[in-house]
Amino acid sequence: MIVAMQEKATEEQIDAVIDAMEEAGVDVHRTTGAMQTILAGVGPTAGLDLTKFEMLPGVLHVHRISAPYKLAGRAWRPEGTVVEFPNQATIGGQAIAMIAGPCAIENREQIFEIAACVKAAGGKFLRGGAFKPRTSPYSFQGLGIDGLKVMREAACAHGLATVSEVMEIAQIEPMLPYVDCFQVGARNMQNFNLLRELGQVRKPVLLKRGIAATVEELLLSSEYILSGGNYDVILCERGIRTYETATRNTMDIAAIPVLKKLSHLPVVGDPSHGTGRRDMVAPMAKAAVAAGADALLIEVHPNADKAVSDAAQTLYLEPFEKLVRELRVLAEAVGRTM
Amino acid sequence: MIVAMQEKATEEQIDAVIDAMEEAGVDVHRTTGAMQTILAGVGPTAGLDLTKFEMLPGVLHVHRISAPYKLAGRAWRPEGTVVEFPNQATIGGQAIAMIAGPCAIENREQIFEIAACVKAAGGKFLRGGAFKPRTSPYSFQGLGIDGLKVMREAACAHGLATVSEVMEIAQIEPMLPYVDCFQVGARNMQNFNLLRELGQVRKPVLLKRGIAATVEELLLSSEYILSGGNYDVILCERGIRTYETATRNTMDIAAIPVLKKLSHLPVVGDPSHGTGRRDMVAPMAKAAVAAGADALLIEVHPNADKAVSDAAQTLYLEPFEKLVRELRVLAEAVGRTM
Amino acid sequence: MIVAMQEKATEEQIDAVIDAMEEAGVDVHRTTGAMQTILAGVGPTAGLDLTKFEMLPGVLHVHRISAPYKLAGRAWRPEGTVVEFPNQATIGGQAIAMIAGPCAIENREQIFEIAACVKAAGGKFLRGGAFKPRTSPYSFQGLGIDGLKVMREAACAHGLATVSEVMEIAQIEPMLPYVDCFQVGARNMQNFNLLRELGQVRKPVLLKRGIAATVEELLLSSEYILSGGNYDVILCERGIRTYETATRNTMDIAAIPVLKKLSHLPVVGDPSHGTGRRDMVAPMAKAAVAAGADALLIEVHPNADKAVSDAAQTLYLEPFEKLVRELRVLAEAVGRTM
Amino acid sequence: MIVAMQEKATEEQIDAVIDAMEEAGVDVHRTTGAMQTILAGVGPTAGLDLTKFEMLPGVLHVHRISAPYKLAGRAWRPEGTVVEFPNQATIGGQAIAMIAGPCAIENREQIFEIAACVKAAGGKFLRGGAFKPRTSPYSFQGLGIDGLKVMREAACAHGLATVSEVMEIAQIEPMLPYVDCFQVGARNMQNFNLLRELGQVRKPVLLKRGIAATVEELLLSSEYILSGGNYDVILCERGIRTYETATRNTMDIAAIPVLKKLSHLPVVGDPSHGTGRRDMVAPMAKAAVAAGADALLIEVHPNADKAVSDAAQTLYLEPFEKLVRELRVLAEAVGRTM
Repeated sequence: MIVAMQEKATEEQIDAVIDAMEEAGVDVHRTTGAMQTILAGVGPTAGLDLTKFEMLPGVLHVHRISAPYKLAGRAWRPEGTVVEFPNQATIGGQAIAMIAGPCAIENREQIFEIAACVKAAGGKFLRGGAFKPRTSPYSFQGLGIDGLKVMREAACAHGLATVSEVMEIAQIEPMLPYVDCFQVGARNMQNFNLLRELGQVRKPVLLKRGIAATVEELLLSSEYILSGGNYDVILCERGIRTYETATRNTMDIAAIPVLKKLSHLPVVGDPSHGTGRRDMVAPMAKAAVAAGADALLIEVHPNADKAVSDAAQTLYLEPFEKLVRELRVLAEAVGRTM
Repeated sequence: MIVAMQEKATEEQIDAVIDAMEEAGVDVHRTTGAMQTILAGVGPTAGLDLTKFEMLPGVLHVHRISAPYKLAGRAWRPEGTVVEFPNQATIGGQAIAMIAGPCAIENREQIFEIAACVKAAGGKFLRGGAFKPRTSPYSFQGLGIDGLKVMREAACAHGLATVSEVMEIAQIEPMLPYVDCFQVGARNMQNFNLLRELGQVRKPVLLKRGIAATVEELLLSSEYILSGGNYDVILCERGIRTYETATRNTMDIAAIPVLKKLSHLPVVGDPSHGTGRRDMVAPMAKAAVAAGADALLIEVHPNADKAVSDAAQTLYLEPFEKLVRELRVLAEAVGRTM
Repeated sequence: MIVAMQEKATEEQIDAVIDAMEEAGVDVHRTTGAMQTILAGVGPTAGLDLTKFEMLPGVLHVHRISAPYKLAGRAWRPEGTVVEFPNQATIGGQAIAMIAGPCAIENREQIFEIAACVKAAGGKFLRGGAFKPRTSPYSFQGLGIDGLKVMREAACAHGLATVSEVMEIAQIEPMLPYVDCFQVGARNMQNFNLLRELGQVRKPVLLKRGIAATVEELLLSSEYILSGGNYDVILCERGIRTYETATRNTMDIAAIPVLKKLSHLPVVGDPSHGTGRRDMVAPMAKAAVAAGADALLIEVHPNADKAVSDAAQTLYLEPFEKLVRELRVLAEAVGRTM
Repeated sequence: MIVAMQEKATEEQIDAVIDAMEEAGVDVHRTTGAMQTILAGVGPTAGLDLTKFEMLPGVLHVHRISAPYKLAGRAWRPEGTVVEFPNQATIGGQAIAMIAGPCAIENREQIFEIAACVKAAGGKFLRGGAFKPRTSPYSFQGLGIDGLKVMREAACAHGLATVSEVMEIAQIEPMLPYVDCFQVGARNMQNFNLLRELGQVRKPVLLKRGIAATVEELLLSSEYILSGGNYDVILCERGIRTYETATRNTMDIAAIPVLKKLSHLPVVGDPSHGTGRRDMVAPMAKAAVAAGADALLIEVHPNADKAVSDAAQTLYLEPFEKLVRELRVLAEAVGRTM
């Protein structure tokens, strides 16, 4: 950490800041220029709330100079993490993975039809929501564990791995038999108790970025899971909230290469939530792949207009298959496969 | 709801949209102008996902014309809600309430000293955090129920009501004996399962706006609690995330009068989180009162610089007392008391 | 336009709104449902300030149902606009164009070296800034017309078309001999007097999106130029301002396909300003092409670290050439050429 | 400036950064800790583009440690600036000033009626727009200099000072006889040529914050005017663009005390543009005063609903007079007068 003192800071103030820094466990190096004194603090600042130093008398600014996360950092595993699944599928390697399915599992027929389509298109992951708390209390709220059971059956029938969102700690245990990957939704990205608990699980976690979360906060959240010993974390860019309303969210495509540079964890792009508009899913899926995404998460439904939730952003099966064909060509153009 | 069709929409497309609307349970009124057909849908659209209609062929735009919440709306209780507490304090009436305390309860001595100060300053609510999941897994995480016990003691000693944050459903039951008001933090504003459970409780809930939540979403979240039969909900503006970094968040003062107009629920201003800077708490507390806030939520600590969390935004006791004296004059100037 | 009245609106209020709508020149169709009256206004609302209706007594919401722009709309020229340049280059057709150059023209040697490199890489457009008003009044401010002269020479020597930013009306005339395309910068996107003047010019205009402008506002700004009779407008996505600080701006890649759908005008992606980071230019250039961009605008400099402005986002010549080679493969994968 | 090197930075990289810093004219102090080297640069960095150092090999972060502005800083004139006007009115002193008028000057009768009302309410400044470039090219565009002439007459008749927006350099000269204060609108906050020119004028300038500008950028823009020798600059908070749509902009009330702390310049609050809603002008005007604003800028019109522009946010004369009465009481409660 760096503390820049105000030009008029007194020796007394400078000493008080040095004391506070040392009390916090950092070694202090002082540089006194013609106009300003600068204090460089070296040591374990990862868990330190630096803003408290900003309020000390005579302080101008405080800057963090090392990343506040460790295990998520690229330096910790420079070669990159490849997450492996029971069906031999991987996320994070040379092949780009396709994770697809309905926003909500609605019934046996629906999920079997989608599983067949995902398989036919070459996808290896089936994703469906079982718990659907919605913005309005008057909306459909999901099938629960029964939904997961039929999704598991459908996935087994086609050799697919399953992905489903976990909303709270109490759901982890009952979900375990049915999911190969726990998804943590955007609203739970900073539900730290849930993250800590998932750090104890030995199944991969797909962690979505919150709609107002920075890239750094996403990495800090992943650190909660990693520090529990669960190293199979997959990050997901799914759009952030901005002033623009032409799309439901603004998909921050640059977050994909930024995350790849800062971290060794695989990164997924979710153009369905990223745009909220079916007609923008294909171009944004391509953009994500071109920018370096390791996987895509796409909502599909055989009768998309009648999907009980997220209908507007859900692809019909046919356009989905067409998109996968196009992505395959694109993947090759950027030196990967799909 | 209103569906505006594209200029070139065919009769077939229009009929398909009318069918979809009727299937969703709304009565459709059609207006065909020289250039465009407009379909007005009247009926129960509160739980309806309108975006799905936007993707139907020939549709230009879909607009919601009635508020998606009901019980939270001003019309439901035009005279406004006044929430009452066991110590005879109220929030929502003519008097402006002061809720104060440390970000985290640290020990018995700390919370007793603060309670005495809050009481001396005329405050009626003591707030302290017991569960502190932090952005970084390496930071202090709170005292838990033990912390609530000493806070309750300190509050009892001074006739104060207690407010503390609940992070998950499992905490509600054990917290019940110790808190007079459950706080739902910004990160949990859309934790709908938690909200639903709090709808079953018969204690007031202070619901904080998420850092990327709209005013409408805040009201929809309150609807989850209200629809369970718990009508004692207090809304809280605590700053939203914007591009500006001079303050930690941008406190949306206008949300206070907007909420007061749209809803009957009392509104609290939180200038501590709203700005993240101790030196901005006083002017923003005043701004909140001037704009019509029913209460203030302010972080205080006898040794603010050493507070284990939120140090930068926490007031020392003396400036807090000075602020309360100034607010009392201000409250009178806007026709209220404190 | 649609006016949704409040549930309790009186007949008198409804009549007053109808009068106001008719006075504004629109035909009114009234739908009275069980709970609410809806007024649909049909007619010329493009220049109408609809917010004024929102304040009329009894009004709940007002919605615009037709796009506020006309000439920029896709319907006006469904086949898309192809802008042609004197050197036979085009923007908007099947081939993706590369526009490259330094942020600021610094001297003859610099611009000739860059021109040669752009040419060698297959680019057809040389872009350089001559007027550089900077955020700080203490920074370098550009070479002016003298800079444009040497850029024109360098471009001629290599058969390139020139692009340069115009900052104010008085510069148009003197710039005319030296530029083949006027660029309007993000800060001037709503400098309507300048836009109107450029509508009278008969050279293409590259219009950059403002850092807080919506897609709709960008199209409205283009309408100022188009309505003057200058139909050669090229839109440019160059990043918007959000809370995320990992990149200087958040490049709204989705704006590219959204603009292509709403408008017939060609769309350029600017990954240099879009990210502000040299290491993110390549992935974001690829993302823009994958999402459907018609051209790219990239800052290059033989000695990027010493560029007088925008150094951090400027590519060295070699990585630029490598990027172009990769983009050529990518363009083919999405059915285009470069 | 501070440059934090990466943990693995080589001596060669460190030397190269030191060279680059020295070349830029700063003295370098090096601190080498156990894990990381930190380079503190002391010297004239105000006009320096620090981002260029971020791209040098081995660099982790670069931080500015002194404010990039000088003349606008509080330290330059700790007692605060009081701007004086020919009619003896002042902005920046103990009294809070009221600046009011229509968005656009429409005709003689309108502006005279408003002037009389502003005077009667105790206001000393009449503001009206003469040049009105609008988002849509199809809207009303203002009366020009003729409008300023009648505004000047109306102001003279009532002893008011005049304020009007200047859109471009060419308007300065013809406006000079008619305005006592030039307003620079939000869209021109970074029109640096215009600002520089206004630095040569010897009349006060009211500089509005851009809708996506930071507080620091606003101060940098003021520096353009101040560095020309025109020290009478008044800053204006008028709302920034965020994701919230309940109000047209989000009025950043905290910017008022932040600016007062960082700078000696007076600060005006504009609740009309700050909210875009007539019904929110009164509470937000009060909030601005409570937070420390030195003046208010409010749009009034005798027939607000028919105002040619900004109708939705314009007050009728009677509510305006009522607001001023209430503000007078409030001003006293915060130790000021109106």
